[in-house]
Order: sequence, then C-alpha cells, then structure tokens
Amino acid sequence: MTCFLNIDAERGRLLRTYLHQVLPDLPVVLQDEVLDPGAIRYLVTWTLPEDMNRFRRLEVIFSLGAGVDQFIAAGVPEGVQLVRLIDPGLTAMMQEYVAMAVLGLHRDLPGYLSNQRAEVWQRVSVPPPAQERRVGVMGLGVLGQAVLQALAPFGFALSGWARSPRRIDGVRCFHGAEGLQEFLAQTDILVCLLPLTTETEGILSGDLFARLPDQAALVHVGRGRQLDHPALLKALESGRLRAAVLDVTEPEPLPKGHAFWSHPKVLLTPHIACITRIEALGPAVAANITRHQEGAQMEGVVEPQRGY
Amino acid sequence: MTCFLNIDAERGRLLRTYLHQVLPDLPVVLQDEVLDPGAIRYLVTWTLPEDMNRFRRLEVIFSLGAGVDQFIAAGVPEGVQLVRLIDPGLTAMMQEYVAMAVLGLHRDLPGYLSNQRAEVWQRVSVPPPAQERRVGVMGLGVLGQAVLQALAPFGFALSGWARSPRRIDGVRCFHGAEGLQEFLAQTDILVCLLPLTTETEGILSGDLFARLPDQAALVHVGRGRQLDHPALLKALESGRLRAAVLDVTEPEPLPKGHAFWSHPKVLLTPHIACITRIEALGPAVAANITRHQEGAQMEGVVEPQRGY
Repeated sequence: MTCFLNIDAERGRLLRTYLHQVLPDLPVVLQDEVLDPGAIRYLVTWTLPEDMNRFRRLEVIFSLGAGVDQFIAAGVPEGVQLVRLIDPGLTAMMQEYVAMAVLGLHRDLPGYLSNQRAEVWQRVSVPPPAQERRVGVMGLGVLGQAVLQALAPFGFALSGWARSPRRIDGVRCFHGAEGLQEFLAQTDILVCLLPLTTETEGILSGDLFARLPDQAALVHVGRGRQLDHPALLKALESGRLRAAVLDVTEPEPLPKGHAFWSHPKVLLTPHIACITRIEALGPAVAANITRHQEGAQMEGVVEPQRGY
Repeated sequence: MTCFLNIDAERGRLLRTYLHQVLPDLPVVLQDEVLDPGAIRYLVTWTLPEDMNRFRRLEVIFSLGAGVDQFIAAGVPEGVQLVRLIDPGLTAMMQEYVAMAVLGLHRDLPGYLSNQRAEVWQRVSVPPPAQERRVGVMGLGVLGQAVLQALAPFGFALSGWARSPRRIDGVRCFHGAEGLQEFLAQTDILVCLLPLTTETEGILSGDLFARLPDQAALVHVGRGRQLDHPALLKALESGRLRAAVLDVTEPEPLPKGHAFWSHPKVLLTPHIACITRIEALGPAVAANITRHQEGAQMEGVVEPQRGY
C-alpha cells in the first residue's frame, strides 16, 4: 500500500516528511526513487503519468489542485477514485484573489492604472454603493460558495449560477440553460469559477457577453479554454465590457505579443489565484488516506462522468 | 435658523431637496442665492468660507468629509461646533479601498502588473497564508476600526496603533510613542489612516520605514503631508519596502513628472478612497440637525484641540 508522490523532488521530500509523521506505516516513494509500480495504491500528482497500466493496484489518485479536468481528459482507469484537493488554504487564496479582483473592478482600478501611466490625476467614476453593484458567480462548488462568502461582508448584491438548482443564503441562485440568460442580464461583475467540461468549454463567448448589461466586467478564474479571446477583445472594444481580470488563458503561458498583455482594460496574472502550498497539501492527503483505509468516504471525490 | 450649503450648485440643489423632505421647516440657502449671514445657524462646507465673522449666530459647521484638518488649520470660531461626516457609505468606501489595496499587496499585484507590462508569465512569490501576514493600521478611529473589521474575515494577523490606548477584539493594540516602535517591528503591511495633526505631519518618514520589517508594504490613505516622498522612494529602492499604494499626496494633484507616477512599485490613485455621495450626506446632516435642535449630542463632533 505504497503512496507515490509524483511531484518535484524538493516538494516531494517536504510532503513525505509530513506523511511519515502522521502515517508512519505508509511507505512513500518519490519520483527519483526506485519504484515497484505494482505496489502503488495511492498516487499524488498534477497529471496522469505515462503508462498507467503498470499501476495495477492503484486505488486513489490525489490531484494537487482543485481542478481535475486534466485527469478526466486523459482518462482515469476504471475502479480508480479521483480526488481533488479541498484545502482551506487553496480556498482562502481564491477568496483573496477574487475579492481583490471584484473590489478592483468595482473601484475602477484598471482605469486608475491607465491614468497613472498617463500621469492624469482624475476621478474615473463615482462607484455605486456595493448594494447596487451586482456580482454574479458562475460555478457554485466549494470555491464558488467560498468566494460569495468573502464578498458578502462588503454588501454586494450577490447571485450565482450552476448547472443544477442550489440554495445559498443571501445569494440569488439561477441554474441551467434557461436560468443563464436571466442571471447574465442582472450581473455587473461576472466571476467565472466553472470547472472545465465539454459543456463549459468556450462558454465565455461573444453571445454570453452580449447578454450582460452594458459596461459589465469579468473576473476569469476558471479555465483558459472557457474563454473566447477574440470575443473578449471585441466586447472590451465595443464597451459591452469595461474591464477584465484574467488569471487563466489558453494556452498558458500566454504567448508574447498577445493583445491581453498590453490591453489597458485587462489585468492579467499567470494562473496564481490558487497556489498549492505543500504545507497545506499534507494534512488533506493524510486525512483522506486515513479515511480510505478505514473504509470511510473521502473528501473531494470526483465523479468523472460529470467532470467535477 | 437657516442652513447654508456652501457647495457647488448642482449638488447643493440635490441636498436641499432631501433636507426639505425630512426637515420642511428648515430654511436652506445655496451659494448662488441671496444670503443673510446673521441668520445662518448651520454651515455645510468643505472648507471655511472667507470672513467668518459675518456668520455671527453660526452654531455648527458640518464638514463634507471625514477629515477636518483644513478647518482646524484655518481656525474654527469660538463656540462653534465642528462636525465631521460619519456616513456609512464613506466608511464602506474606505473598507473597499483598503481591502483592495491590502489584498493587492498581499498577493503581489504590483509585481504582476510589472510582469504584464514586460509580457512575463511568471509567479512573483508564494504568498504566506493570511494568518502569517501581519497588517497594522495606524489610526483607530471610525475608519480605522471599520477597515480592521473588513480585513478580519480574510484571517490576517491584525494590529493597530493610536495615540491613546484602545481595545479591539481580535486586534493587537499599541499606543503612544513607546508603542509605535513595537507596532512597526511586527507590521508587514502598514495602513496609514491617521488624521493630519502637528504630531502626524511627516510621520511616514525614513526613520519610520527603517523600523518596519524588510520587504514591508505601505497603504497610505491618510493625508498627503504625512508622507515624506523622497524617504518613500529611498525605502522602495533599498528593498526596505517592496511596494506602496498611495491615495493621497502633497500637493494634490501630484505634479506631472513626479517619480510616483511611473514607479513600478507604486500604485497611485487620485484621492478617491472615499468619495462623498450627496445621497448619503443628506441623512447624516439631517439627523445631526435634528439632534442639535433637540439638544442631543450630535454624531461626529470634533475636538479641535486634539485635531480629530
């Protein structure tokens, strides 16, 4: 019942040290060590390693992140459970990033940055009270709900959209294809936190932007392949959207010379909204291995059919 | 018992319309109307008008902002009460701005903006959990306390400093000259929300920056004259400070060509952390006039001797 840490040696060693302390009976091997594939029961990794068939007793794959689309695209072997990382640190980082981005858009930060570059001392707008600024979150899983929770104390008018019906206190919830249009029509700042599935690929399209109110804004912290780049540029140029904060693109890294780098209405960060800290990974993986060994339900098990 | 609205005609008319609704017996005059100075009991204004002696029955000056240093510098006539604006909207705006700035500094926004300009897709740092990021607020009045309240849900390690002792739940409080050094030594992100007094003028000096931990950061939302510009530039160059978000400067507007405009570690906004909305002013002024007429204590009365 060995655990294989398929991550860089430095962080692998940190994680093994932690696991040895709390699960002293669990054998742990690293990337640069001799491996008996048939002994591997647990795999901790960002992506599927090659030749998965050799891990013939594999029971659980622990993703190092919240997103698991890369595993689903590659195909998880039958009978193997896929577990995403639900780690309070990761959730907190997403709350920080989205709160920063939403407040930045609410308070015209992109406009003030442009003014600073131009050496212009001038008010961009008088922002409405938060109660009149409608923030809509697409994707109401663990992260989406946490983000709504972080925005609530500022008093924003909150709504959310998901595939299936949800109830969240203080949040106007919409669902399904029929709910999407109504959701978009009442969203001034749109936050995309959707998982990547065949249904959400390209969802941030010209058609979607056209359904937002004029001068809406976008925070994209989902997956790069959900966003139609040319459609976003067009929406920014037409004034349909007044600004966008992007943490993900397709491809990543974004190629030099791409219009997003220099666009005055785009704030771009290199997929850093959530950064997995090894110190936080250890407890999450250890707790789930313990649950698994006791026959209990693990936290963060993914249903590959649904894609999240 | 006339009320004189010494503000631009457009906003004056909006404010008078509101006051007429809730205080129909209160005569209100505007800047561009015939004025009997001896009849003025209440004055709503940003700064003291000239020839204050003509307002010989003046009882209360209502400042349009939270800051009142301009009145104290000019000299409030004896027997006249000075009232600063305590308006939930203003407080909320300061919470939004400081939360945006602190989160931006916590998450390396200035570094990512520089990377974006250089078309570099690269992580700046792995930020520590908020629990290990120490945010210190100078100035623990209404706005300082509100800002601490807005930062608390993110889990930052919070501290505060004021002239005199305070107790705030969840906030490590320091006070006085002797408490200042200990406060600074444990502050990673310093937020200045102090009122301008003879004691706080120039307080953000090279000496103060030298007492912060290495790679600290600054959010300045106090008054321009509190900050020594050359000292800040020096601290940013030496790495003592890693970045600064500035909403106030001396003078304002900041002259073209000033180093702050183009400094990669400075985010500059044109004194917009709090913007007084006339819709919010009305209720605050009306409630205080009612209190004053009933002989009750008004909210926001300033002690000119202390300066706040």
